[in-house]
Amino acid sequence: MTTFGRHPDATIVDLAEEAARKALLDAQVDPAEIDALYLGNFLGQSLQHQGVLASLIARRLGLSNVPTTSVEGACASAGIALRHGVMATRANMASTVLCIGAELLTNVDVARVTGGLAEAMEQQTDGATGLTFPGFFGLVASAHSAQYGTTREQLAAVPVKNRAHGVTNPNAMFKKPVSLGDVIGARPIADPLNLLDCSPISDGAAAAVVTSRPRGDQPLDILACDQASGPAAVHQMSSLTTFPATVAAAERAYKQAGVGADEIDVIELHDCFSIAEIVDCEDLGLLPRGHAAALIAEGATTYGVGDIVVNPSGGLLSRGHPVGATGLAQIHELAQQLRGVANNQVEDAELALAHNLGGCGATATVTILGARS
Amino acid sequence: MTTFGRHPDATIVDLAEEAARKALLDAQVDPAEIDALYLGNFLGQSLQHQGVLASLIARRLGLSNVPTTSVEGACASAGIALRHGVMATRANMASTVLCIGAELLTNVDVARVTGGLAEAMEQQTDGATGLTFPGFFGLVASAHSAQYGTTREQLAAVPVKNRAHGVTNPNAMFKKPVSLGDVIGARPIADPLNLLDCSPISDGAAAAVVTSRPRGDQPLDILACDQASGPAAVHQMSSLTTFPATVAAAERAYKQAGVGADEIDVIELHDCFSIAEIVDCEDLGLLPRGHAAALIAEGATTYGVGDIVVNPSGGLLSRGHPVGATGLAQIHELAQQLRGVANNQVEDAELALAHNLGGCGATATVTILGARS
Repeated sequence: MTTFGRHPDATIVDLAEEAARKALLDAQVDPAEIDALYLGNFLGQSLQHQGVLASLIARRLGLSNVPTTSVEGACASAGIALRHGVMATRANMASTVLCIGAELLTNVDVARVTGGLAEAMEQQTDGATGLTFPGFFGLVASAHSAQYGTTREQLAAVPVKNRAHGVTNPNAMFKKPVSLGDVIGARPIADPLNLLDCSPISDGAAAAVVTSRPRGDQPLDILACDQASGPAAVHQMSSLTTFPATVAAAERAYKQAGVGADEIDVIELHDCFSIAEIVDCEDLGLLPRGHAAALIAEGATTYGVGDIVVNPSGGLLSRGHPVGATGLAQIHELAQQLRGVANNQVEDAELALAHNLGGCGATATVTILGARS
Repeated sequence: MTTFGRHPDATIVDLAEEAARKALLDAQVDPAEIDALYLGNFLGQSLQHQGVLASLIARRLGLSNVPTTSVEGACASAGIALRHGVMATRANMASTVLCIGAELLTNVDVARVTGGLAEAMEQQTDGATGLTFPGFFGLVASAHSAQYGTTREQLAAVPVKNRAHGVTNPNAMFKKPVSLGDVIGARPIADPLNLLDCSPISDGAAAAVVTSRPRGDQPLDILACDQASGPAAVHQMSSLTTFPATVAAAERAYKQAGVGADEIDVIELHDCFSIAEIVDCEDLGLLPRGHAAALIAEGATTYGVGDIVVNPSGGLLSRGHPVGATGLAQIHELAQQLRGVANNQVEDAELALAHNLGGCGATATVTILGARS
């Protein structure tokens, strides 16, 4: 992956190229061996006015006339790109696939970026009300509080943990720890969420090589890679405290991998806002429903205390969130964890899970990775 | 498919729903049986500010939490959507896939649509010069003329043929024939192309069900469905008179289907401009390189004269070109042809080919369909 943060002089193709060349080097794969390319990207057209990005990136990398496809599922676009690498190899329609996620947001003014991100909402109803993503997740936090008694302090424990994890991540946008007081006292964004409850607007790219002919020092097994859809507009939701797309993708992924949630050692999940991590932990079956907020605040998902570590990279809150790249940055972190070479190594990590969420739960992917013995 | 043309009161979701319900009815498939959805769309975000469209359409159709993916390859988006239906079934990651292409363009002013369509060009070089798609294909026509002696009259023969084919197509945007004189005397758009050499800005949707468990009256076999990429910017092209993405996709598709170009009976190809049909016929190996313009003008690709019929539906020039829908509208026409129930029936049609081109040749799909005996 590239560093996440501001890349004022780069294009999406530049960012994608950097991540792709690093992934090819790591996998010991020559560009000539790549026989398909998937790109996850959300706002290349709306903000940069550039379509056909998958083909432009293939040309930059010197690939031949391989199939190149851009996939879109808002903030889950990179998780979807990875899944299609798996699908192409399983279908025997490719043997070695380059999966890339890339996004460029900070070269555009914040109002336009906020408007662009709102394209992940249903426009006829939610968008028309002026609802933004901080606003939507503020509603989720209020509903979770009403239903389960989740407190402002418990919400704040999420960014405190993730910012602490991110301190040693050289690719993270934010490497400074924050305190509970910092989060609770930060500028309000959308009640009850404050500035430090929200992931930042960022640029960056990440990539992975999926192949049916593994080589390199330490290939990993993709034990499952599932994708599901869910309600995309608020009026379609029967509950604001769960994302059915996550639940469905996770159920199928655990079944396919033949493992239970309790067997996972390390998790990268979609903490676009503090409340999202709490809901995700419940939807993924990592923590009991209604109890995740308290358990996270007690340390159940961090080093030395919990049985699992959630977002060792710092997550979206610390690493940053170039939306179409996030799902593959999660895979980057988990690969280091399963190889035993991560910056924040989780001891004896053998099973890892990545969770990528798009829109207001419109789409989600869940990937389970295993170390090769 | 929906009718192609102007749909001033519809959203993209409305158009997609209409086409999808028609396809489900035709295939005798219940929405509950659909286990994946692919959407081809190009400008839903840039012009309508709506992302996550695949999920919104799935909700409208009442699908469960199935994987929903939007794919983008400019004007080839629907061909790519179809190919991913094939891929998902081959990978055993789905058994019955709904593939939809949908686009809404006419509710936005023409300058914005033209700007949106230019997102299919490389922005750093071609876009920055002010090049538009009529401009690019004007260059292609001039190059073809310089290289092979293609005349203004030969170019005009393409819209004359396709508009004649479209007269009986109830879904076509234009149902009036035009004469050589009409085309040659039409308003100049980008030298040497005039208004009637250009496909129109249109709205519409088309859909197909791809399944490993065929039923219904007349399922068809997808003998091959290939996809390739090519140079996306003018400076990357070694020739302006061929699209390497088409050549590569066609070669692989013929090989996979085990048929030669000379065995195909009926073709729907990407005549976004008159010159494109000439180049496509050469790239697909249907007519000898450098001779297609003269042969088309002599009737080699129409009823009663030629061994093949190209664009029996009227093609993009007559049917219209809601860009993300076109590739599946081609499949709609070819399905009717192979079932023997088309408006303009090609006698004894047994093998059919669809060709969908994106951008300045950035991406292409070639699909070969066969009637079931």
